[in-house]
Amino acid sequence: MLERLNSETITESLLLTKMAGALALAAAAMATPASSATRLCSLSSSSFIHFLCLRNPRYGLFRLRALLSFHTCSSLLSPPSPSMSSSARPLSFPSPSRLCRCSSTSTGELALKMSESGEKVREFRKRLKIAEIKGGHDEGLDRLGQNLVVRGWVRTCRVQSSITFIEVNDGSCLSNMQCVMNDDAEGYDQVLSGSVNTGASVCIEGILVKSQGSKQKVELQIEKLIIVGQCDPISFPIQKKRASKEYLRTIAHLRPRTNTFGAVMRVRNALAYATHKFFQENGFVWIASPIITASDCEGAGEQFCVTTLFPSSREGHNSGVSDIPSTKDGLVDWSQDFFGRPAFLTVSGQLNAETYATALSDVYTFGPTFRAENSNTSRHLAEFWMIEPELAFADLDDDMACATAFLQYVVRYVLENCKEDMDFFNTWIEKGIIRRLSDVAERDFVQLTYTDAIELLLRANKKFEFPVKWGCDLQSEHERYITEDAVGGSPVIIRDYPKDIKAFYMRENDDGKTVAAMDLLVPRVGELIGGSQREERLEFLENRLHELELNKETYWWYLDLRRFGSVPHAGFGLGFERLVQFATGIDNIRDAIPFPRSPGSAEF
Amino acid sequence: MLERLNSETITESLLLTKMAGALALAAAAMATPASSATRLCSLSSSSFIHFLCLRNPRYGLFRLRALLSFHTCSSLLSPPSPSMSSSARPLSFPSPSRLCRCSSTSTGELALKMSESGEKVREFRKRLKIAEIKGGHDEGLDRLGQNLVVRGWVRTCRVQSSITFIEVNDGSCLSNMQCVMNDDAEGYDQVLSGSVNTGASVCIEGILVKSQGSKQKVELQIEKLIIVGQCDPISFPIQKKRASKEYLRTIAHLRPRTNTFGAVMRVRNALAYATHKFFQENGFVWIASPIITASDCEGAGEQFCVTTLFPSSREGHNSGVSDIPSTKDGLVDWSQDFFGRPAFLTVSGQLNAETYATALSDVYTFGPTFRAENSNTSRHLAEFWMIEPELAFADLDDDMACATAFLQYVVRYVLENCKEDMDFFNTWIEKGIIRRLSDVAERDFVQLTYTDAIELLLRANKKFEFPVKWGCDLQSEHERYITEDAVGGSPVIIRDYPKDIKAFYMRENDDGKTVAAMDLLVPRVGELIGGSQREERLEFLENRLHELELNKETYWWYLDLRRFGSVPHAGFGLGFERLVQFATGIDNIRDAIPFPRSPGSAEF
Repeated sequence: MLERLNSETITESLLLTKMAGALALAAAAMATPASSATRLCSLSSSSFIHFLCLRNPRYGLFRLRALLSFHTCSSLLSPPSPSMSSSARPLSFPSPSRLCRCSSTSTGELALKMSESGEKVREFRKRLKIAEIKGGHDEGLDRLGQNLVVRGWVRTCRVQSSITFIEVNDGSCLSNMQCVMNDDAEGYDQVLSGSVNTGASVCIEGILVKSQGSKQKVELQIEKLIIVGQCDPISFPIQKKRASKEYLRTIAHLRPRTNTFGAVMRVRNALAYATHKFFQENGFVWIASPIITASDCEGAGEQFCVTTLFPSSREGHNSGVSDIPSTKDGLVDWSQDFFGRPAFLTVSGQLNAETYATALSDVYTFGPTFRAENSNTSRHLAEFWMIEPELAFADLDDDMACATAFLQYVVRYVLENCKEDMDFFNTWIEKGIIRRLSDVAERDFVQLTYTDAIELLLRANKKFEFPVKWGCDLQSEHERYITEDAVGGSPVIIRDYPKDIKAFYMRENDDGKTVAAMDLLVPRVGELIGGSQREERLEFLENRLHELELNKETYWWYLDLRRFGSVPHAGFGLGFERLVQFATGIDNIRDAIPFPRSPGSAEF
Repeated sequence: MLERLNSETITESLLLTKMAGALALAAAAMATPASSATRLCSLSSSSFIHFLCLRNPRYGLFRLRALLSFHTCSSLLSPPSPSMSSSARPLSFPSPSRLCRCSSTSTGELALKMSESGEKVREFRKRLKIAEIKGGHDEGLDRLGQNLVVRGWVRTCRVQSSITFIEVNDGSCLSNMQCVMNDDAEGYDQVLSGSVNTGASVCIEGILVKSQGSKQKVELQIEKLIIVGQCDPISFPIQKKRASKEYLRTIAHLRPRTNTFGAVMRVRNALAYATHKFFQENGFVWIASPIITASDCEGAGEQFCVTTLFPSSREGHNSGVSDIPSTKDGLVDWSQDFFGRPAFLTVSGQLNAETYATALSDVYTFGPTFRAENSNTSRHLAEFWMIEPELAFADLDDDMACATAFLQYVVRYVLENCKEDMDFFNTWIEKGIIRRLSDVAERDFVQLTYTDAIELLLRANKKFEFPVKWGCDLQSEHERYITEDAVGGSPVIIRDYPKDIKAFYMRENDDGKTVAAMDLLVPRVGELIGGSQREERLEFLENRLHELELNKETYWWYLDLRRFGSVPHAGFGLGFERLVQFATGIDNIRDAIPFPRSPGSAEF
């Protein structure tokens, strides 16, 4: 609101402010209608203006409140008092609602009447951010001459004789706003006193002018600067010199203030939104698959147990083992647990998604999943987000087509909407990443049966660490050879894997040896997507459970989907953090999620 | 693809199909270039067409493959063989990729060459669904005369002498497609044999005609019907007669096939997407707050413990208490747990969101949160989704404005995009819900201080079960009185609560007694949103932790946000399932989420 008002109403506001003061002084002497007399009992000067405004038909309430609000806000552009400067409250606007509230009245009815009508909640306005100022086609030139307010954190401050350059970032984009300050600007004493440090939060008002520098088209000529929250240059953990990613993981609460993590999180956000957009535009329904589940379906990996059996675990470390409810045989008494039996964190929402796909046609999940595997690698997280679409009346070809279209859509979305961040990755994280992603967005994806892939690997003029033969699982080295060497850098889908190395629910092919599974491999990252057509034939599924010695009773509801109006259906799963890695070039998966969880690590 | 091709290419396709047969027969006699000879070794007739198409510059590969695919698909419109009818595989299209693959060649190079170039993945096309056919402005009249294929589940089948009416639903909308079948249509034997039962899945091809009935504008005149998956009318758990919601919860895997749950889940989906749209359009970044956390921040509620200490809990019920790692004092040895200390499921992502708001400006979370409270009510879930935006450089007024704008946006989105489902709720679930929601979307929200609200309640001409005095928590009956009686059915925001009944992180007001907290109450549902401005002043926050005897060390990272460039910020939390209840009129919160979790209940 402040920004919008600045240019057009600044003079009017000042006039009104002065007028208000005069009016307030005259208040006691003023003739007012008897019915309003009580309301004046405890009014401050500003509430009095507000009161008058309400009564004055010449000014719309909203406009006057806006002016008033500018009046009260403007106080925050004056330097804070010394006692407030460390983490002060310069932005605590007196709220309009409190301005005209009269908490003690003698009439009662009045209070009731006021409360009945209440006070309007103010209009929500998108705050003007640096991305909006500089992110347009003109890179800000269209706003030249405007009086703007920028709020953010100081990245650098360089004092050059009488001119000071302050780079301010508000996280809306990678770019800082270069703010130029002459020594006669309001708040220059903060520069002199050394408060304008890296990490300090500031509120800067100024006029947008053409930049003299070559790095940006526009800069802000500072009129007023205030320090909102100081930042001690000695103890601030993020210094200008480049910090290692390992170190930054120990300060995961501050790392989004760095260029790299800001960029990763904006791209992550874009990928998430593009995911929703893609599926919504194609008529898929988002389903929240359950996080806690008593079904240990699939057995896809080690699961975390979810329990309330440890009596005092919340308070800390003092749970006695003997306090855990047990049966007379010394076994854990699950009947006393929250869910009355062992419950776990989900490893996949697929089976649940299938129940909805066989009712609503096309659905997708997008939620967290978990693995309790003790692997401290750069490719594994104990907690990660997964996207799992499920398509009804679809076979493996539909599934592959959907996976391909999805991946191309989100990649295109990021290339179009995160240009600046992608340029940053292209320069600093992975040279050539933009070319690599453009290839994925534009090139045809090719498919290959597992059998052909094995053939290809056997004929390869290359020694692999893991020997290749039909029936083996493909290792990273094999996948890399296929995507990078054999097909020359295209994404590849390998399909029709041996049934013995795949999950029980995958649809058996006519050959009796393979299943309608597919893995989508991309250059550099390897497997990004895994999917399959699901076995929709009751007899086949029951046989498979029997072969694998899985308990049919456990899967009663899953089998029901094949009993009642079964349909061919297919789906895939995509680890979202892998996708973030793929799109940003970030090496370690722990840097692709805000707060990574891994063995020994659940801080924050 | 099938649908698009039907009208324009059906004749062409038949011609091609016949041609293909002839060509296949002639294949052996044909003169082919020597280099391709090996490729012919094991080609079927359809792969031969494909092969020829590849070579024939007169037809684009894609177009020909599309025609071919129609050809192969058309086989599924013929009645399935008796042995396949129960849960058969009529939709197992021969995949184009396999059509021209030659797995045994003598040359080797050829296999390599084929694999290198791979086979293109087919194009993804949005499947034509009933919502698209009937959901437009014309309710389908714009498609009159088109030859269409509908795939879905039979809702009802009525046989009237020579005409049969089959209502088919595909979950894309509440409406069924009425399909009308004469006794000479292909697949009529399925009607005669009693296979067209409620719940059976079908694939129906026909021509869209004007409906004779008054309930819909168009209907499908059936040309061919096939049963995809049968459904035994005796054992199918969802019968035509209305089932209780309690019963349907026991078959949560099938309940989305009912009108009510289909509608709830579509509206839920619309609310979720509208949530993302609102925040994205306003420049907020989506943040995945962690699910597993070792911080017991806020103490907002009982937490679930996440552990791998039970050795065999995955296998079932046979964990011995003595197998749990313990210290020599008999305490649980947390150092041997996965995270090296007790870890829990999150109760709120707010504190984590604050870390990102103070870096990226405006952020929001949308993820699952948990409460291990043993309350078996219609208002509580052990697992629910929460939306938690956090705004930097914002005060409580900004927060209220954002909450109001958000709620109005998502309500408007649902009213505009889920008309049919909302009409259903309006008729069957809560009469007047559309009026109630329209009010929320259009009316101004009013605000009231807690102090004024107490005043209002004290003066109310009404006896409350819970006595009212300043400092008490507002109970449902109080909230209901305020929204429904005092302000006449408007949403109300109550603000500035006594600090003793609110969380430690809320910003203290100048009066020293209240904090800048707000609760948004809506008629009928009560509290929907709770939020606050956060205490950004380090000294105030530290004092508050001290007063509440909370451990400062635990909050080291949270306090850091106030140490380094602190900014005024505010946010709110919204239980997503409450929002679903609010928007659908569904009474019990367990019916607002696909798989509800509550004490004793974690099935599916």
